[in-house]
Amino acid sequence: MKITIKEIAAISGVSTTTVSQILNNKGQRFSEETRKRVLKAVDEYDYNPDYFAKNMVHRESKTVGMIVPDVTDLFFSKVIEGVEAYFNKKDYMILLCNSRHSAEKEKDYIKQLQNRSVAGILLASPNSLKLESDLKGSPYILIDRGLNTRTEGNLLVKEYSGVYQAIQHLIDNGHTKIGMLTNESGYYEMSERFDAYYQCMKDNGIEYNPKFLADGPVTIEGGYIAAKELLKKQSITALCCGNDQMAIGSYRAAYELGLAIPTDLSIIGFDDLEISAFLNPPLTTVKQPAFDIGYTAAQYLLQEIEQPNKVVPNKTFETTFIERGSTITIDK
Amino acid sequence: MKITIKEIAAISGVSTTTVSQILNNKGQRFSEETRKRVLKAVDEYDYNPDYFAKNMVHRESKTVGMIVPDVTDLFFSKVIEGVEAYFNKKDYMILLCNSRHSAEKEKDYIKQLQNRSVAGILLASPNSLKLESDLKGSPYILIDRGLNTRTEGNLLVKEYSGVYQAIQHLIDNGHTKIGMLTNESGYYEMSERFDAYYQCMKDNGIEYNPKFLADGPVTIEGGYIAAKELLKKQSITALCCGNDQMAIGSYRAAYELGLAIPTDLSIIGFDDLEISAFLNPPLTTVKQPAFDIGYTAAQYLLQEIEQPNKVVPNKTFETTFIERGSTITIDK
Repeated sequence: MKITIKEIAAISGVSTTTVSQILNNKGQRFSEETRKRVLKAVDEYDYNPDYFAKNMVHRESKTVGMIVPDVTDLFFSKVIEGVEAYFNKKDYMILLCNSRHSAEKEKDYIKQLQNRSVAGILLASPNSLKLESDLKGSPYILIDRGLNTRTEGNLLVKEYSGVYQAIQHLIDNGHTKIGMLTNESGYYEMSERFDAYYQCMKDNGIEYNPKFLADGPVTIEGGYIAAKELLKKQSITALCCGNDQMAIGSYRAAYELGLAIPTDLSIIGFDDLEISAFLNPPLTTVKQPAFDIGYTAAQYLLQEIEQPNKVVPNKTFETTFIERGSTITIDK
Repeated sequence: MKITIKEIAAISGVSTTTVSQILNNKGQRFSEETRKRVLKAVDEYDYNPDYFAKNMVHRESKTVGMIVPDVTDLFFSKVIEGVEAYFNKKDYMILLCNSRHSAEKEKDYIKQLQNRSVAGILLASPNSLKLESDLKGSPYILIDRGLNTRTEGNLLVKEYSGVYQAIQHLIDNGHTKIGMLTNESGYYEMSERFDAYYQCMKDNGIEYNPKFLADGPVTIEGGYIAAKELLKKQSITALCCGNDQMAIGSYRAAYELGLAIPTDLSIIGFDDLEISAFLNPPLTTVKQPAFDIGYTAAQYLLQEIEQPNKVVPNKTFETTFIERGSTITIDK
């Protein structure tokens, strides 16, 4: 049975108006002693005023906003799952915003979320640096995987070392003609992944060939189109893809061009999506912990909300190179 | 510039207390004429009181709740995209809840959403019939694809005719040993899809063999495990999968057992996920319009919210059989 304001008033020996005024921090005509008595009763009997009425009092809503570039993206849906798993335990709910890779939409969503007085905002965007001034005023955590120079609440993913290890693996297995699918021109900046590719080739004395680079959206279709263009023109023995979705598209491109994976072409991805282990052949890739990234981001955001003066730690997520069936040793 | 309550009061020639009381439907000491004058000013100058304060007045929050069984499921993330696309245009935001296939969690979420006075709820669940009494009190739309006998707001998908057509296609191409991956025992009830399989076989004079049926979770891994068990024991030439994710798992199972698709085994899915056209070979499947289902559900929910007395229409979504490379004609 839900206790009512009338009952709280009766228990405390005051009027309902007094209870309401105390809960709303209004009116001065009652003593500190009365105030304490009412708040004690509210606490003891777990009196739960109408949810929005309570928001009026506490100026917080147990609601956070989360903005992602694409809710159907396999990486981000896993991040959302992690965020939801943490906040659900804490009785918070998530207002989900799908920015469709638009910086303008991100700006709009931030404003809308702030108008709704959300307790905090999680933003997954490579545009976060440009948006930080808009975010000020709400607690926030950025899921930009380290594209920043902040001193706290940084979620770093060892993308560089993961990709470096993958390229080194290809080179150790005889590959020198290694292509890369990236997304330099678009919404994402996969610069760390590209830098690792470039540096590892250089460290191994392999000349960088810009023709072995193809650029496209970080989707299955994007990977398919970019890989098909690249494979038609260039003779490479291995292809490092910016993410697993692009790798899935590359499988299709190779298949259509009559190239067998891995005998004609080795392919490496990045992410380790659930599907990647089930591909034919299973995809060799670099795993990053999407669920954990979401879960930790949620944890850090709650700390910012509840303990705004405490420093939010940084966290570095390891990447793991996973060798499966899409890569092969070739004659050196 | 945001107009303030003081300015509204000045424009209307009343005190701020009067404006506040009128907006909160409190106090009786002002005339109807005063009330109208204040509301006109509020409307004209687009006075936007603090968001939660406004909720107190209108008892609605421009927020809807959406409960899905699995946010990482490729079908549901597409449904969410459709829902978000519609509501975003209407300045509504979505509280996203991930029930993880638990009926208990669905019940909890419904309660939590109602405590927050959301304007309405979208529930994607095969448990919806059991949950309808909990939903009463809020406008709601069920995304259960027709597992119900409601007279309005029914979103029906022609699952039966889609699967029937797919099985007929297999039979027309010489297949009689046709297996089926389904999920009768679990959270989903794929009974329409199974019924279509069963009936089409019967209509073609092919005896139903219960050993050709395998049951599993409707995930990639679930399909992989179920298909592997089935294919190890039974010699079939075609496999109809409850959804595309199970079909992706079946590809892997066939591959591990040395069965080539489609020469040794034809495979058919259901959904037509984005990835399905990019598989090797591209998956023959039955398309259902996930984005449209979400978009329409959102549209219907808003109608229920804004015009509660108007009958919400029913809508039937067509399914389309799409023949790709995973099915082949065999000698009859």
